[in-house]
Amino acid sequence: MKKITQSILEKVIRKRPANSYKGTYGKIALIGGSQNFGGAIIMASLAAVYSGAGLVTTMTDPTNQTSLHDWLPEAMFVDYHDSQAASPIISAADVVVIGPGLGTDNQALTILTKTFELAHKNQTLVIDGSALTLVAQNHLTLPQDSLNVLTPHQMEWQRVSGIKIADQTPEANQAAANKLNALVVVKSHRTQVYYQDSVYENTGGTPAQATGGMGDTLAGMVGGFTAQFADQPKAVLAAVFAHSAIADKLAHKQYVVLPHQISEALPKFMKKNQSV
Amino acid sequence: MKKITQSILEKVIRKRPANSYKGTYGKIALIGGSQNFGGAIIMASLAAVYSGAGLVTTMTDPTNQTSLHDWLPEAMFVDYHDSQAASPIISAADVVVIGPGLGTDNQALTILTKTFELAHKNQTLVIDGSALTLVAQNHLTLPQDSLNVLTPHQMEWQRVSGIKIADQTPEANQAAANKLNALVVVKSHRTQVYYQDSVYENTGGTPAQATGGMGDTLAGMVGGFTAQFADQPKAVLAAVFAHSAIADKLAHKQYVVLPHQISEALPKFMKKNQSV
Amino acid sequence: MKKITQSILEKVIRKRPANSYKGTYGKIALIGGSQNFGGAIIMASLAAVYSGAGLVTTMTDPTNQTSLHDWLPEAMFVDYHDSQAASPIISAADVVVIGPGLGTDNQALTILTKTFELAHKNQTLVIDGSALTLVAQNHLTLPQDSLNVLTPHQMEWQRVSGIKIADQTPEANQAAANKLNALVVVKSHRTQVYYQDSVYENTGGTPAQATGGMGDTLAGMVGGFTAQFADQPKAVLAAVFAHSAIADKLAHKQYVVLPHQISEALPKFMKKNQSV
Amino acid sequence: MKKITQSILEKVIRKRPANSYKGTYGKIALIGGSQNFGGAIIMASLAAVYSGAGLVTTMTDPTNQTSLHDWLPEAMFVDYHDSQAASPIISAADVVVIGPGLGTDNQALTILTKTFELAHKNQTLVIDGSALTLVAQNHLTLPQDSLNVLTPHQMEWQRVSGIKIADQTPEANQAAANKLNALVVVKSHRTQVYYQDSVYENTGGTPAQATGGMGDTLAGMVGGFTAQFADQPKAVLAAVFAHSAIADKLAHKQYVVLPHQISEALPKFMKKNQSV
Repeated sequence: MKKITQSILEKVIRKRPANSYKGTYGKIALIGGSQNFGGAIIMASLAAVYSGAGLVTTMTDPTNQTSLHDWLPEAMFVDYHDSQAASPIISAADVVVIGPGLGTDNQALTILTKTFELAHKNQTLVIDGSALTLVAQNHLTLPQDSLNVLTPHQMEWQRVSGIKIADQTPEANQAAANKLNALVVVKSHRTQVYYQDSVYENTGGTPAQATGGMGDTLAGMVGGFTAQFADQPKAVLAAVFAHSAIADKLAHKQYVVLPHQISEALPKFMKKNQSV
Repeated sequence: MKKITQSILEKVIRKRPANSYKGTYGKIALIGGSQNFGGAIIMASLAAVYSGAGLVTTMTDPTNQTSLHDWLPEAMFVDYHDSQAASPIISAADVVVIGPGLGTDNQALTILTKTFELAHKNQTLVIDGSALTLVAQNHLTLPQDSLNVLTPHQMEWQRVSGIKIADQTPEANQAAANKLNALVVVKSHRTQVYYQDSVYENTGGTPAQATGGMGDTLAGMVGGFTAQFADQPKAVLAAVFAHSAIADKLAHKQYVVLPHQISEALPKFMKKNQSV
Repeated sequence: MKKITQSILEKVIRKRPANSYKGTYGKIALIGGSQNFGGAIIMASLAAVYSGAGLVTTMTDPTNQTSLHDWLPEAMFVDYHDSQAASPIISAADVVVIGPGLGTDNQALTILTKTFELAHKNQTLVIDGSALTLVAQNHLTLPQDSLNVLTPHQMEWQRVSGIKIADQTPEANQAAANKLNALVVVKSHRTQVYYQDSVYENTGGTPAQATGGMGDTLAGMVGGFTAQFADQPKAVLAAVFAHSAIADKLAHKQYVVLPHQISEALPKFMKKNQSV
Repeated sequence: MKKITQSILEKVIRKRPANSYKGTYGKIALIGGSQNFGGAIIMASLAAVYSGAGLVTTMTDPTNQTSLHDWLPEAMFVDYHDSQAASPIISAADVVVIGPGLGTDNQALTILTKTFELAHKNQTLVIDGSALTLVAQNHLTLPQDSLNVLTPHQMEWQRVSGIKIADQTPEANQAAANKLNALVVVKSHRTQVYYQDSVYENTGGTPAQATGGMGDTLAGMVGGFTAQFADQPKAVLAAVFAHSAIADKLAHKQYVVLPHQISEALPKFMKKNQSV
């Protein structure tokens, strides 16, 4: 098992070329946030924008429109019930993050299956939170052509993979990830990443992160990093490391680290850790 | 009468174990915030999240949904009229904080009595603000099995206990607290705490705290501390002390201390005062 | 003409007595903020809370409820169309600030005349912005028993007093103020205050303040100061001076001073300048 | 081709005269922000207010009212469907900024053509974003008498001028700008400004700016600068330079610069760079 360490950052976070524009840094669509769980998609969107994604559209329940813009005037809003508006944006996105606060009702299932239908070869699909539960409950097959990134915590991974937490060995997880056709980030005290024939373990992380919304922030960062950086599996590793490294730093002075604080720390953290 | 001092903090605020997750730090449901008093439940929720509670759900009037998420994307939202959605969350909560900005109309009474019905042995119930007035007005009996924490100011305590402010001696208060089956925090210039055969008096606090919302913040902190820390009566004492100690510190430089500033100071304050 | 200087601050801003509670620092009702001018009443309310008022209720259009709580969870909200809810709160208030963003339609006039009817001996009425225009347009007589504080800029003063800007001499202004039964704050480059047989001129102020919302903030501060401090005409002078002194300080480093920045600076400014 | 450098700032940013008031610094109306793109007009409005404009009214979809006031209590709100309310304010404005997040539906076209009808000799019209697309799609003629400032990126400029990006030489651009009767700001890695017989090239700018909303912020700054400063073409140059200079400074420490951060930095930046 390989360790994910500081060195992944400068391998991934490139210095931006002088002559570039917002299109250079990718289009992301984030889908989630029911009326009950609106904060989740806002935190994921915050992470995507603050990690430097070029153009961010958030598809969510209309009751979350104002909060989204209060946190992020930089993000565009689409009512996720409006599939006519949503579909072309999902198709055009380089990265789709689906699941934070999506919920598991029929409406959520409809959006998820539609997103799977629209997925294509040049797209990264980050599947998180409720979307993972929906995949498990409905035995959905992941899209064939997109790069599928799953970000379950251990219980969600049990649901998706059928492997009980106690039995989640590296070998079992790797086999399941490959069978699912996915890169899998199993979140825990020491997060592990499974991709093809490699297994990685994160070396950072703090119990100060044990609070609601931490995973939504990671999902948004995975979106932001894969949208910008060429080697996408490495971009996922860098997002995982950066998320815990920022938390570790904040935890020197804080008993609990709020998820939105990690996003707000991203621009300076990424600058310090970019390649020269 | 025992003094509540700095030493309570490190007795209560434990260093978080490395291998823990958000479930380790408790589930809190906060109930309150009518259309007129939405800020109260937002301030209580802010205190709960910033003190480190694992999972926070705020049940309030739907007109407060956006403000809740503007302050706290980390909190989940439930319309408090929707008892079908609210009941299972209340039942599953380790701690329920009810009252900040709840109001005293029939709707509020219905929610309060429902919450009392759902209360159970492994639950802490923090009863604050309007909920105390409702208890007094309607002669409600507190639940049998939960740990009931009341957080009245002196006039509210008069209503609940029947003891006039001038007659609120330690002996009378203690007898009333025991009769009510409650741990009682009587808020004043020097807040007192009554629990079983013990009486405690806080040693901190400043007139810079004399502003609306200060009590809502304390209620949320009591929720956050009892959700995380094993010895719950001591957790209440630590919340009471921390609330005034942060205010005392801010008051060195401020004529008035805003309640939300206390919550925002919690992560650093708790880190400094945790046990090693 | 007397000068308003630094020395007014410590004459007015008393050190808070240890044994006090939020009721000690007054109840304020602020009325204003149509759908088009909601920011005005929010800025006034911000000034009232941050200057240390004990209990603040903001009566405004319901479309402003969320923004109010986003800035100020500490304030209570009342829909200003709901006169049944508003009237008892207006009656119970120590200070009523009416006018910021109120507009001049019939609805606004109805609220203003109702407020004048409810005014009583122990009340300070701060009449600002659109409320001044309504007074002029409708030839309203100010209430007999309350302390009436008008805060017009020069054009509004022309409307209310009938004195053209060019003719607004101290003598003419003083006569008009006395005839109106009001303490009048005529805002300009060097704001003047007229009360009974005294005329005062402010010595602070900067062109960096020349931006929309500055007057709303002053109205809120006048409310906050008169609610807390015993000598109310002096409290008005202190509010006028503090408003410009904070702006002067910020303007050392800023080309323009935003009104909400003045409010946010109040707690530290007042602490530094309180009497010992 | 002349270079736009630091020296433009003190030529334009005058020290404010002591005896001035908010009317001295201009009235701006900003028009844009559909339900999907509300953040764009909020960011433009933020830039207008923080650059020191005297009075700012934002005309947008009503679903953006709350977010507008959460960012800017200083701005007034008008529902852009309400042409009866909007028209007199547009007519009275010194500067109208139209386009950020406006969208391209019929409603948007109606507002744009109405604004063109109302334009007059003493007015600056800043035409940005969707408004440029509407001009191109509908072959609209710019108003005769106003100073028309277009702020396209290269693709928008292709649409408006008919010149393909590869063919956008200084000569071709200049000819097209003159034919259109406009001052044109062509945004790119090194932004160029075309006005009558002069061509200017900006010397600042960073790839950290390559993120959604950067152009909306520039449009608002152009509005804020032309509203305040007498020589309007020079004011445009100063806005262009200031926008990139602030970004350059922030980019020393940040991987990505958020548009709203530029606005928030304006008051201090302008103070440092004002003429004495």
